[in-house]
Amino acid sequence: MTRSDKRAADQLRPVKFTRSWTDHPEGSVLVEFGRTRVLCTASVNTGVPRWRRGSGEGWVTAEYSMLPRSTHSRSDRESIRGKIGGRTHEISRLIGRSLRACVDFKALGENTITLDCDVLQADGGTRTAAITGAYVALHDAVTWLGEKKIARKPDKVLVDSVSAISVGVVGEAPLLDLCYEEDVAAAVDMNVVMTGDGSFVEIQGTGEERSYTRDELNQMLDLAEKGCKELMSLQARTFMEQLT
Amino acid sequence: MTRSDKRAADQLRPVKFTRSWTDHPEGSVLVEFGRTRVLCTASVNTGVPRWRRGSGEGWVTAEYSMLPRSTHSRSDRESIRGKIGGRTHEISRLIGRSLRACVDFKALGENTITLDCDVLQADGGTRTAAITGAYVALHDAVTWLGEKKIARKPDKVLVDSVSAISVGVVGEAPLLDLCYEEDVAAAVDMNVVMTGDGSFVEIQGTGEERSYTRDELNQMLDLAEKGCKELMSLQARTFMEQLT
Amino acid sequence: MTRSDKRAADQLRPVKFTRSWTDHPEGSVLVEFGRTRVLCTASVNTGVPRWRRGSGEGWVTAEYSMLPRSTHSRSDRESIRGKIGGRTHEISRLIGRSLRACVDFKALGENTITLDCDVLQADGGTRTAAITGAYVALHDAVTWLGEKKIARKPDKVLVDSVSAISVGVVGEAPLLDLCYEEDVAAAVDMNVVMTGDGSFVEIQGTGEERSYTRDELNQMLDLAEKGCKELMSLQARTFMEQLT
Amino acid sequence: MTRSDKRAADQLRPVKFTRSWTDHPEGSVLVEFGRTRVLCTASVNTGVPRWRRGSGEGWVTAEYSMLPRSTHSRSDRESIRGKIGGRTHEISRLIGRSLRACVDFKALGENTITLDCDVLQADGGTRTAAITGAYVALHDAVTWLGEKKIARKPDKVLVDSVSAISVGVVGEAPLLDLCYEEDVAAAVDMNVVMTGDGSFVEIQGTGEERSYTRDELNQMLDLAEKGCKELMSLQARTFMEQLT
Amino acid sequence: MTRSDKRAADQLRPVKFTRSWTDHPEGSVLVEFGRTRVLCTASVNTGVPRWRRGSGEGWVTAEYSMLPRSTHSRSDRESIRGKIGGRTHEISRLIGRSLRACVDFKALGENTITLDCDVLQADGGTRTAAITGAYVALHDAVTWLGEKKIARKPDKVLVDSVSAISVGVVGEAPLLDLCYEEDVAAAVDMNVVMTGDGSFVEIQGTGEERSYTRDELNQMLDLAEKGCKELMSLQARTFMEQLT
Amino acid sequence: MTRSDKRAADQLRPVKFTRSWTDHPEGSVLVEFGRTRVLCTASVNTGVPRWRRGSGEGWVTAEYSMLPRSTHSRSDRESIRGKIGGRTHEISRLIGRSLRACVDFKALGENTITLDCDVLQADGGTRTAAITGAYVALHDAVTWLGEKKIARKPDKVLVDSVSAISVGVVGEAPLLDLCYEEDVAAAVDMNVVMTGDGSFVEIQGTGEERSYTRDELNQMLDLAEKGCKELMSLQARTFMEQLT
Repeated sequence: MTRSDKRAADQLRPVKFTRSWTDHPEGSVLVEFGRTRVLCTASVNTGVPRWRRGSGEGWVTAEYSMLPRSTHSRSDRESIRGKIGGRTHEISRLIGRSLRACVDFKALGENTITLDCDVLQADGGTRTAAITGAYVALHDAVTWLGEKKIARKPDKVLVDSVSAISVGVVGEAPLLDLCYEEDVAAAVDMNVVMTGDGSFVEIQGTGEERSYTRDELNQMLDLAEKGCKELMSLQARTFMEQLT
Repeated sequence: MTRSDKRAADQLRPVKFTRSWTDHPEGSVLVEFGRTRVLCTASVNTGVPRWRRGSGEGWVTAEYSMLPRSTHSRSDRESIRGKIGGRTHEISRLIGRSLRACVDFKALGENTITLDCDVLQADGGTRTAAITGAYVALHDAVTWLGEKKIARKPDKVLVDSVSAISVGVVGEAPLLDLCYEEDVAAAVDMNVVMTGDGSFVEIQGTGEERSYTRDELNQMLDLAEKGCKELMSLQARTFMEQLT
Repeated sequence: MTRSDKRAADQLRPVKFTRSWTDHPEGSVLVEFGRTRVLCTASVNTGVPRWRRGSGEGWVTAEYSMLPRSTHSRSDRESIRGKIGGRTHEISRLIGRSLRACVDFKALGENTITLDCDVLQADGGTRTAAITGAYVALHDAVTWLGEKKIARKPDKVLVDSVSAISVGVVGEAPLLDLCYEEDVAAAVDMNVVMTGDGSFVEIQGTGEERSYTRDELNQMLDLAEKGCKELMSLQARTFMEQLT
Repeated sequence: MTRSDKRAADQLRPVKFTRSWTDHPEGSVLVEFGRTRVLCTASVNTGVPRWRRGSGEGWVTAEYSMLPRSTHSRSDRESIRGKIGGRTHEISRLIGRSLRACVDFKALGENTITLDCDVLQADGGTRTAAITGAYVALHDAVTWLGEKKIARKPDKVLVDSVSAISVGVVGEAPLLDLCYEEDVAAAVDMNVVMTGDGSFVEIQGTGEERSYTRDELNQMLDLAEKGCKELMSLQARTFMEQLT
Repeated sequence: MTRSDKRAADQLRPVKFTRSWTDHPEGSVLVEFGRTRVLCTASVNTGVPRWRRGSGEGWVTAEYSMLPRSTHSRSDRESIRGKIGGRTHEISRLIGRSLRACVDFKALGENTITLDCDVLQADGGTRTAAITGAYVALHDAVTWLGEKKIARKPDKVLVDSVSAISVGVVGEAPLLDLCYEEDVAAAVDMNVVMTGDGSFVEIQGTGEERSYTRDELNQMLDLAEKGCKELMSLQARTFMEQLT
Repeated sequence: MTRSDKRAADQLRPVKFTRSWTDHPEGSVLVEFGRTRVLCTASVNTGVPRWRRGSGEGWVTAEYSMLPRSTHSRSDRESIRGKIGGRTHEISRLIGRSLRACVDFKALGENTITLDCDVLQADGGTRTAAITGAYVALHDAVTWLGEKKIARKPDKVLVDSVSAISVGVVGEAPLLDLCYEEDVAAAVDMNVVMTGDGSFVEIQGTGEERSYTRDELNQMLDLAEKGCKELMSLQARTFMEQLT
């Protein structure tokens, strides 16, 4: 089985982080997984949601959205339909949960960081690109918190890093980092979120066309572990560059 | 670690299916996993959603909801808030996907079966009880389709059975079929949907309090496989009883 | 004119109250009028709506809803349509008004009791069953308030009992407690809510197919008085049974 | 007991119908019950709602609304709140049902008449003024249908007239046609809709402050019969005037 | 080019203000521009929106709406559609901005005046009639504030007067104060809001059918200046009449 | 008065069009007016809205939106609030009207072009940048229509070009192309849309802090004419570059 872009089965698409892509947010990252392009911004607000007030702990939340023509054919805006669809809800919740896995809320203090992940162009893997990019934006926002001396213990806020990748079975072949064309053809589709220490934050595997065996599951998890490891080192490398 | 109801770590709560619990639906099952009680009904309509018309294929969809006081403290109705919450959306989509995994849509012909899963009392595991009970309701609705000679090939509609169970890690102990109290205390929470042939339809595992290792994942999957196997035989047994 | 279930014109369907039907609510009653089955729960919250704060008086409110497949053919969920329909609004308001008729709000103190009436199976008379069952749930919640020493004067909260029944004219015959089939055929339809002392809380009579004379009105009211009296003694009898 | 405007207990407020109050509608009536002022318009459309198509029968529906400052203090617009309140729903449904009681839908043919009742100034009895005025607007729209030769049998469309009045018990005194001040003070509140032949279309009686006896009910019904009879003759008189 | 009602190109339709048209509001004016009829009410509330609290300054806001049958054919209610349309939003905002141009918020103190402009009959120019009438209602509400000694410096609240008129190009002819028929036929459509001192608050000119030259713009502005001047003196004249 | 970026009063900010910025749309342009950055995409669909079917004419519509953190402080998503705000409605309508001014709908045939203008970064003038950029995207989509031989007469679809610019009075100084900081400080704010032949499509001028004289209006229009002329030649120049 040959992939349309000649990648090996266990190979990521070219990944790129452009930090400070916009000026206003405390963290702003354009993340690209091949042709998938997501703008991840981190916005800091003092205060926390009502149910958390007085706890001394902060909060991290996320919202995911696709521009109407980020996709092959235009889809209606959720703002005009007047409600958020199930898929959007599900992905926003997944991103929020994933990022919260690397945060020490005591160290953050009663501040809220909102991660907005807006898909500018979609070519498969938008949610995993969003999580991986949102970590970079979160990191930059936490640095900003330190510079502004807002968080209690800014250097303790991030307890680990987080990245995510999709894997799937197309035909009988397990593949890493599916593009749209592969995603549509996949019999099984799985998204894996991992921390820098190599453990799992979230596994979501769906048999779209057929159910899958434990063997297939293990093959997919092997690919995902390899992919997340590589994403972690790309995140680390981007932090070594000077922010302009 | 002792469970509050003295169960072994790998033991299901008492499971009970009451078929024909209400009179109107084509399939109507009250499913109980311990104190969790979900009414699952299957409603048959001729015709399919617009995007599927003319395909010759049917459709199966699901809606999940909790009665306001099915929980410890009363929650507001989504009908009054005017919108469906993210959790409800997510679970409805999960139930629909899970049940579609065992259906041959060609054999169903252009008919739609809607599975309504309404939680009457919640004590953990409502989504897995809903899937497991919805399969029984779906089965009875398909039998009805056969009697009414509506589906094309009623005996080919169901290609397998489907059941689901929750597993989790509480403290360091992997446990099967968490009740509410255990669910709240769990560091890791996983829902597993399987077919009768022992393969996976869906795995959703979330590190709520901490991330989890591959070893822990494997222990949880072992428990889930055992639990689903038992649920399958309970489903099979209920079909051997005469419906009144 | 013979009724399909052989009842006399002035005869109620079999009425049954199952108290403590679910575990969480302060009052939980499954009420059955024949095949009509409504789950009535009473939830206690400290505090009252904003407009009543500081008055020293409590509040009682109600919400009515039908499960999508409680009816012959499935109806859409109001949560998914995003708004409450007129009929639901009307009945919720009727139930709330009716139950408030038997409550001394000073004695209740600044506490709110919410009555949720969810129709599990509909066969005519759902609103009258809901009111009659909600009174039983309210009664149990007030007992709970007394045990918890929350209300100011728990034994003074309920100043009377409340029950409700439907009457109608089918053909030329006035009938008590219409089932769905009779309700559809009725020319005139009336719901009557009464207190234990035999006076009216609410009369709502609608000429569905034709207008009705004062004579017919009087015949219907005679039937309703008889029906409500019987419901009162059934409510009284259920309170003599030990709650498990 | 003296009424603030010196009326006898069984006396209506001054009632006035101004026909053709606006130019566009097929029927347009400004109805005044004392200071209560409601604009009732009747709009004719060819065609009927989907569920009635092909039946050969027409439809009549109504919508009620209050201008934000028709009341003593300003209330928010339902268009801005994004949903219709329960009271509005209830009254719109009541007006529709009441007017349908005097229409022969076969004679109307597949046409729809929409009655819009917009309260310009509220001083109690807005729903009964709306029904009474809407009948006049409906009458004029039916005349228009005849002139345009749209209805099948225009002179058979209206089979009777309809009017409505409020009655109540203030203190111990039964009163006819309550103004706002009396309505607020009423222990019992009843709205009665009658046809020209003296029978009831709708009775809605609510014990707001206390329940009421059958004797009180009868006194209120006597008042209502007297009031509706007078309204009928005022309606008849207005039709004898030339429309400009 | 002859206008259907024989007016000269630079002639207003008959303009009429009826003050105190309803009893409850602090200002209530029925304004008529020919057959266009708008009820403008001004409602005073103590307090200001949250974002303005503590500023010592007041606020003026406006809401515009059309009755469903104010137009040639009936349009659906926005309350029933569940959302405000773009045109309604736009006009409400325009009215609010326009009226705020003549108010000294310091002098008003922390009070809010809400201007409701409800179109009872539409024949073109509803937004300009609304602004012109709302000024009269606002004026009366400010007088009321003075009598009640609520505003800080009531006689300083209004710093100028405000009026508005429409102009357009029909065929090649610039016309003042377009009626509906002319509005539909206009190639260019412009609304102009002016203060009593002859300067502009707002100019909104749209080339509906074609773009327009600077010359045409100037001709339209000349007409608008003449029209607003006349409206100002009509407003001034109405204030010289005694309010009943 | 010196501008913060040293521009002359009649000088535009640096303007940049990046065509084909995303891959999927038929036209995709990133337009920059200084730091204001808007993604304008043009999506072609066969067919037209219902009210235009059978006319043989096409349609052009637009939707404007801001990413939540395109602004200095984060604003809530309209999709989550469940409704479109007044400002968004107003700007979407303005963009649609403006672009329709340069289209021959007969030549387009029954096709719809949707212009999505999503603000990625806001620094004043987002609506004028959106209109100016949307014209470029529309142009590219029309070229695509010609290549695909979809429109009836593709080379006749665009009858002119369209561009837009903001002008304002800050202090007493009329300025061209206001950045955010200037916009906030402006006493008068005006947006002007022009066609390539130098006539006006739309003028919207608002006295935010004070009303403005006819002289000031003329100074602002002179600036706007100069600005639009320059934008037209920048648009023309970008079309001379090869699209990759």
